[in-house]
Amino acid sequence: MTGTPGATLIRSDPATVDLAARFTASAAAGDSTVTPNDQVEAWLAGRQQAGDVRVTRIPFADLVGWRFRPDGDLVHDSGKFFSVTGVRISSGRDRTVAWSQPIINQPEIGLLGMVAREFGGVLHFLVQAKMEPGNINTVQLAPTVQATRSNYTGVHRGRGITHLEYFTGPRAGRILVDALQSEQGAWFLNKRNRNIVVEVDEDVPDHEDFRWLTLGQIQGLLRRDDMVNMNIRSILATVPFAVPEDPTGPTPAGPWRESLLRSVAGTEGALHTTRTVLSRLTAAKARFELDRHVIGLDEVAGWHRTADEIAHDEGRFFTVIATDTTAASREVRRWTQPLVAPRARGISAFLVKPIDGVAHLLVRARYEAGLIDVAEFGPTVQCTPDNYPHGSRPRYLDEVLAAPPERVLYDTVQSEEGSRFYRAQSRYLVVAAPDDFPVEVPEDFTWVTLHQATELLQNSYYFAIQARTLLAGLQSTW
Amino acid sequence: MTGTPGATLIRSDPATVDLAARFTASAAAGDSTVTPNDQVEAWLAGRQQAGDVRVTRIPFADLVGWRFRPDGDLVHDSGKFFSVTGVRISSGRDRTVAWSQPIINQPEIGLLGMVAREFGGVLHFLVQAKMEPGNINTVQLAPTVQATRSNYTGVHRGRGITHLEYFTGPRAGRILVDALQSEQGAWFLNKRNRNIVVEVDEDVPDHEDFRWLTLGQIQGLLRRDDMVNMNIRSILATVPFAVPEDPTGPTPAGPWRESLLRSVAGTEGALHTTRTVLSRLTAAKARFELDRHVIGLDEVAGWHRTADEIAHDEGRFFTVIATDTTAASREVRRWTQPLVAPRARGISAFLVKPIDGVAHLLVRARYEAGLIDVAEFGPTVQCTPDNYPHGSRPRYLDEVLAAPPERVLYDTVQSEEGSRFYRAQSRYLVVAAPDDFPVEVPEDFTWVTLHQATELLQNSYYFAIQARTLLAGLQSTW
Repeated sequence: MTGTPGATLIRSDPATVDLAARFTASAAAGDSTVTPNDQVEAWLAGRQQAGDVRVTRIPFADLVGWRFRPDGDLVHDSGKFFSVTGVRISSGRDRTVAWSQPIINQPEIGLLGMVAREFGGVLHFLVQAKMEPGNINTVQLAPTVQATRSNYTGVHRGRGITHLEYFTGPRAGRILVDALQSEQGAWFLNKRNRNIVVEVDEDVPDHEDFRWLTLGQIQGLLRRDDMVNMNIRSILATVPFAVPEDPTGPTPAGPWRESLLRSVAGTEGALHTTRTVLSRLTAAKARFELDRHVIGLDEVAGWHRTADEIAHDEGRFFTVIATDTTAASREVRRWTQPLVAPRARGISAFLVKPIDGVAHLLVRARYEAGLIDVAEFGPTVQCTPDNYPHGSRPRYLDEVLAAPPERVLYDTVQSEEGSRFYRAQSRYLVVAAPDDFPVEVPEDFTWVTLHQATELLQNSYYFAIQARTLLAGLQSTW
Repeated sequence: MTGTPGATLIRSDPATVDLAARFTASAAAGDSTVTPNDQVEAWLAGRQQAGDVRVTRIPFADLVGWRFRPDGDLVHDSGKFFSVTGVRISSGRDRTVAWSQPIINQPEIGLLGMVAREFGGVLHFLVQAKMEPGNINTVQLAPTVQATRSNYTGVHRGRGITHLEYFTGPRAGRILVDALQSEQGAWFLNKRNRNIVVEVDEDVPDHEDFRWLTLGQIQGLLRRDDMVNMNIRSILATVPFAVPEDPTGPTPAGPWRESLLRSVAGTEGALHTTRTVLSRLTAAKARFELDRHVIGLDEVAGWHRTADEIAHDEGRFFTVIATDTTAASREVRRWTQPLVAPRARGISAFLVKPIDGVAHLLVRARYEAGLIDVAEFGPTVQCTPDNYPHGSRPRYLDEVLAAPPERVLYDTVQSEEGSRFYRAQSRYLVVAAPDDFPVEVPEDFTWVTLHQATELLQNSYYFAIQARTLLAGLQSTW
């Protein structure tokens, strides 16, 4: 019992301490000689052309390998990939909030992996030009690997997943970031992915679908519409950052940028301790009292099925459709599959407020039918405005939409996961709250700093995907 | 955008920084004038006598308010409390590990709450003498409040829950500790509880079922068999501790105690960063590839139902039985309910090894049918030895059972949740690993310090209940 000479304890892991600084340096590199910015768009356009993708809607009867089970569920013959099933929810002490809905059932752990490597002392990330049938522009930037378990264990009958060996087995790289994170709880039942960044020191074979970009280059693309896919955004949100050395950035020097950087640094503190922030999420989960039952799709009330869609009786929310895709560049060259098609564009927005000179995000604990543990922190506002043509408006939506341009810090349209959602776009906004916006907020809402958000994102299921997209977007602005 | 005068940021919450020191001081108080040790046993015996509890096994047909549904599930007429249903599991890339089993379905968030108050500057905790039908000795020490949602929202038709007002609503105390934690994944489907400690400054009305004890007093009882119920153990495991000022404790001064205290302090570091520890759990979840389907109890293969039990065909694992309880002191005076009765006593054990003079626990990522997210860290060894009469033995079981007495740091028998399990006892051991025990361990295993364990336990679902009982037990030894 006298210890084990030879083992070496880690007091502060140099790689970990250094990690935020290294990501920050990569974010400061807005261009790179490895893949200059002026070549990125040509490359993406070239991949799009080479992919020669055609996506057409088809009737369910033309799906190959998919069928409706007797209970109405839409399933694949292999029992793999995913199915479309039903879920019934009730909530609240008196069970007055209750509904049923179709939902994508894919309760497995997928892999969203980014390979990183230093070039000239700066971390670069191996991104992929990835075609997805649901993308409005077909090809977007994706992580090095994005694979469902069905993909990477071979059920897809597709080609091997390029670069998968850097994430599993003896050739795997050093892990820099690694946590499970959720996807859209309104559309996915218990879906979650391993978000992982690994660093390699060796040469990675060139491939026409892949390029090395700095974080700064990726962030530049993230300030534009529909270029960076949801999976990259999810990974970027989990990356820790330090305060950049460069006194300037996309946001001009001044009190606003200073309050953001203080929020990143964390040294000035926060309105609530992280302990209190977590306790508020825990309290919300208990308060929502969610009951969830998976049911057959035929049991879902208020929805109906036609030859080519599953739809809400009043034309709200989303439809489930079938598509046929022909492509040169994906794992297999032609396939059919169901997709979820939202009826209208959503809005997700953070209100941000400097409190004692430190920027705080207003997060909201929000429950959704498919989240693995009732609720996660989401944006201040998350809704589809078309669902509120008249009557009550979602809390704080008007504050977001009424913001004058000089208070809008981030405003882009981004696509959701194009392998499951058909032309699903959302507008993502980060807006400075009015000066007189109160610090006191209703019980589902909580103020957090960027430092706290990053700290919490080292764990799983605290921040919903919409909040993560907004965090990745906000990171691109300072 | 110039900040909000008046709000005050918290750089280091005095209450939080102070918290570990205050819990530590309470743990150092092995006795108290508020409820002297020599009165505790008499009080418990008195409550047991006053309760006048009789628990008898009955046939399922004599259950009142419970029935078997057409699919074989055992349910309550109200649709509340819990049901006994079936679950089918398959795991591994080739799906070779597969089984089905009965499981208690209670997918709600219960409340395990402890009220704390300072007396003479030392935190005391309001514990309850609680009768549970499954307890081998009927009455054990329980938290101030332990309530399922059905209990505290009134479906139980019982009396109001005493002291519930300190956890919810306007009279709630200051939250010191608050996180969701799992229960036995082999027996419970998605069961989890809010583990919460609140501090109050006001007088709490006296009640014959409740007494104020220091942590040191509770820990003294935890070094004995079957006195402190599972719910207190779960809460205690989440409490942060600092290094005690007292140079002596139950473990004599010397290298072993020093290595434990260094492990608590965290200042000497750890073999792995917490980032790496979490990454190993994430990797295990992905590796296990667990598929889970809830099925009707009649579909469970290899089990059968008689008039008074649901049992495994080969007499292994557990049975589901029915009981009739008569009591004077519970919410209602007489009721019938199903209970899960394990066939044999389980063993849960941690191997502990000083690495560079800092004690490390060997945790194992373990999957169970009912855990909410595939796997959690459990003990080094967790098994029912009777299930291995011959053939392969669970890894490290022999190292635990062969340990000479001077290497056994903690060894008690404790009861599992007596409101769901009938006479379910487990032997809990913490054992110093042999000096030549390797630092290199198989991929499901990871070394963590006590400081890391406590840090992780501020979050949810990292440590299984068996590991938490062991942590609470180990905390009572230094």
